[in-house]
Amino acid sequence: MDSRIAKAQQYAREAGIDALLITPGADLRYLTGYEAKPLERLTCLVLPSEGEAVMVVPELERASALHYGVSSEIRSWTETEDPFDLVTSLLPADAQTLALDDQMWASRVLTLRDRLPDVRLALAGDVLRELRIIKSAEEIDFLRVAGATIDRVHDRMHEWLKPGRSELDVGADIARAILDEGHTSVDFVIVGSGPNGASPHHDVSDRIIEAGKPVVIDIGGTTRDGYCSDSTRNYIVGDQVPEAYERAYEALLAAQKAQCVFAGPGVSAEAVDRVGRQILDEHGYADLFIHRTGHGIGQETHEHPYIVEGNTQVLREGMAFSIEPGVYFEGQFGARIEDIVVCTEDGIERLNHTSRALRHL
Amino acid sequence: MDSRIAKAQQYAREAGIDALLITPGADLRYLTGYEAKPLERLTCLVLPSEGEAVMVVPELERASALHYGVSSEIRSWTETEDPFDLVTSLLPADAQTLALDDQMWASRVLTLRDRLPDVRLALAGDVLRELRIIKSAEEIDFLRVAGATIDRVHDRMHEWLKPGRSELDVGADIARAILDEGHTSVDFVIVGSGPNGASPHHDVSDRIIEAGKPVVIDIGGTTRDGYCSDSTRNYIVGDQVPEAYERAYEALLAAQKAQCVFAGPGVSAEAVDRVGRQILDEHGYADLFIHRTGHGIGQETHEHPYIVEGNTQVLREGMAFSIEPGVYFEGQFGARIEDIVVCTEDGIERLNHTSRALRHL
Repeated sequence: MDSRIAKAQQYAREAGIDALLITPGADLRYLTGYEAKPLERLTCLVLPSEGEAVMVVPELERASALHYGVSSEIRSWTETEDPFDLVTSLLPADAQTLALDDQMWASRVLTLRDRLPDVRLALAGDVLRELRIIKSAEEIDFLRVAGATIDRVHDRMHEWLKPGRSELDVGADIARAILDEGHTSVDFVIVGSGPNGASPHHDVSDRIIEAGKPVVIDIGGTTRDGYCSDSTRNYIVGDQVPEAYERAYEALLAAQKAQCVFAGPGVSAEAVDRVGRQILDEHGYADLFIHRTGHGIGQETHEHPYIVEGNTQVLREGMAFSIEPGVYFEGQFGARIEDIVVCTEDGIERLNHTSRALRHL
Repeated sequence: MDSRIAKAQQYAREAGIDALLITPGADLRYLTGYEAKPLERLTCLVLPSEGEAVMVVPELERASALHYGVSSEIRSWTETEDPFDLVTSLLPADAQTLALDDQMWASRVLTLRDRLPDVRLALAGDVLRELRIIKSAEEIDFLRVAGATIDRVHDRMHEWLKPGRSELDVGADIARAILDEGHTSVDFVIVGSGPNGASPHHDVSDRIIEAGKPVVIDIGGTTRDGYCSDSTRNYIVGDQVPEAYERAYEALLAAQKAQCVFAGPGVSAEAVDRVGRQILDEHGYADLFIHRTGHGIGQETHEHPYIVEGNTQVLREGMAFSIEPGVYFEGQFGARIEDIVVCTEDGIERLNHTSRALRHL
């Protein structure tokens, strides 16, 4: 953690930032290991670009911060004190530019704006992104474990996905299995049967699973180490597959495979997106691929790099992200194939290994 | 929902606010029913103080917004468009003051600041608080269901809380039971055994449950209707209770009971806090009650009103909040008794009904 802090300080100095203010969330976890709850009482790491960091916490979170191994000085405020007095007292005396956690709440941002009218407020994400986007060997191991954990849930899908059951009931079983298999939280459960599969971010509904209607299952959780899983597979009850679906599925499989072969160090994020789009286009499905190819993943399910047209960022060894093209037939069905991959020295390593074929139950 | 929108507009006009910008979270759910995911793609309700609301969503969330019954016009942006162009185009032409969702991310706040340099940015919470703080009869029913649901989990504690097991393992069982009993998400699980009970916001650790060591269990989830539960009870394995703990527990029980008797319409939030503190003080435990008495609850576990010294807000019928005094003996153990209550015409109704006595397992 201390080397991360030192690097963040170095990047802050290079960006002309005098201090970073980091509130609970993935940035705080990344920098300090502290998994603080994002609640109404202010917790904030005050990290000057030179000198020592101070963790500001509510008094009743002090033990928790220590429990998580926070190594910097901890300063606490009691229930009737004003935490912003404490935070502003800890800033470098001549601070001109502060960088705020990207997900800091507006209520805090506007309080800081009012308290520090002469200070320029910028975003910490611009500094921390470079740090978080390259995963260490240890982080990649954590992502491998997360991938294997969600794979075990997909492997058990036959236990729950049965005709006559509702998406809600299937989803509840999946949620339990996500915990049973070793995640400590359920981040999302999408069970998109029939026409619901055509909505990429559908979650669950009271719709009943029917034979012959494809089902998109996109699930993820967080492991004890704090790293996220995310994998999508496609299922159908019985042997009858709609012909239009079957053809599209073949194209989708080819697209996802081509993207995985193509992705690697030196390739731009948008180029990976284009490869998938191109293959779907050749089969006449370009218009049905209505979202980007993927998103980075780590301590957040969605983080940089985003695999999307317009993102010219070049992939480098250690970047982890999803490759998840999809095709969506409004009012009928949808399909999406998603693996988490990590960029290696000369290509990518897939972290999900269950069969990508349409699975018959 | 439409009457909530109308009231929010009325309050906004009274506060001199031209439009509210509401991002995913409890405010958005409250106003529109839309349980949007708080992700990197911008979803934002643009609610002018006069005229029609517009829900701005990523194109791939359009179906989801419709699924949640969003009744306002929906405008979507595709993966390569800039959502802030769309949001700013929807603002009243002469807007001078915008109120931002209290939990809007800094990345959005600073983008709006840069795009709208002449517009004053305020907080929507100041407008929405008055609305959300009084629960309707339907909302109180939802909170009753949430309370009964978490009560069933406490009633099953003997199944999991056994000597030799770790807090982590007990916590994992509790998390599953929170779902099994009818919540759709696990919001938090605190299993504080022995000295860990002295940290009010401890969650779980690898500490082993031992006979004769008190355990604080504070748990909560969200129900299908979107309302939260939160209840704390205290357990001990075996009949041996540390004497200092037993005496403190008696005082704590008396304090919590007195607060529940005292709370009601016309009483200030801070007065409820003081009553508990006074009773603990009489027994010599005032210094050990290191946090406020409670927090409001509804679609968020923690919301207004906060039951804390300095909050002179007068309680009114329909306010729902926790009453949860605690005593914490650093390095030894802690105890906290927490019920959710709702302010009635002439007092409070408790929404948790399991025994508040120290429970022997």
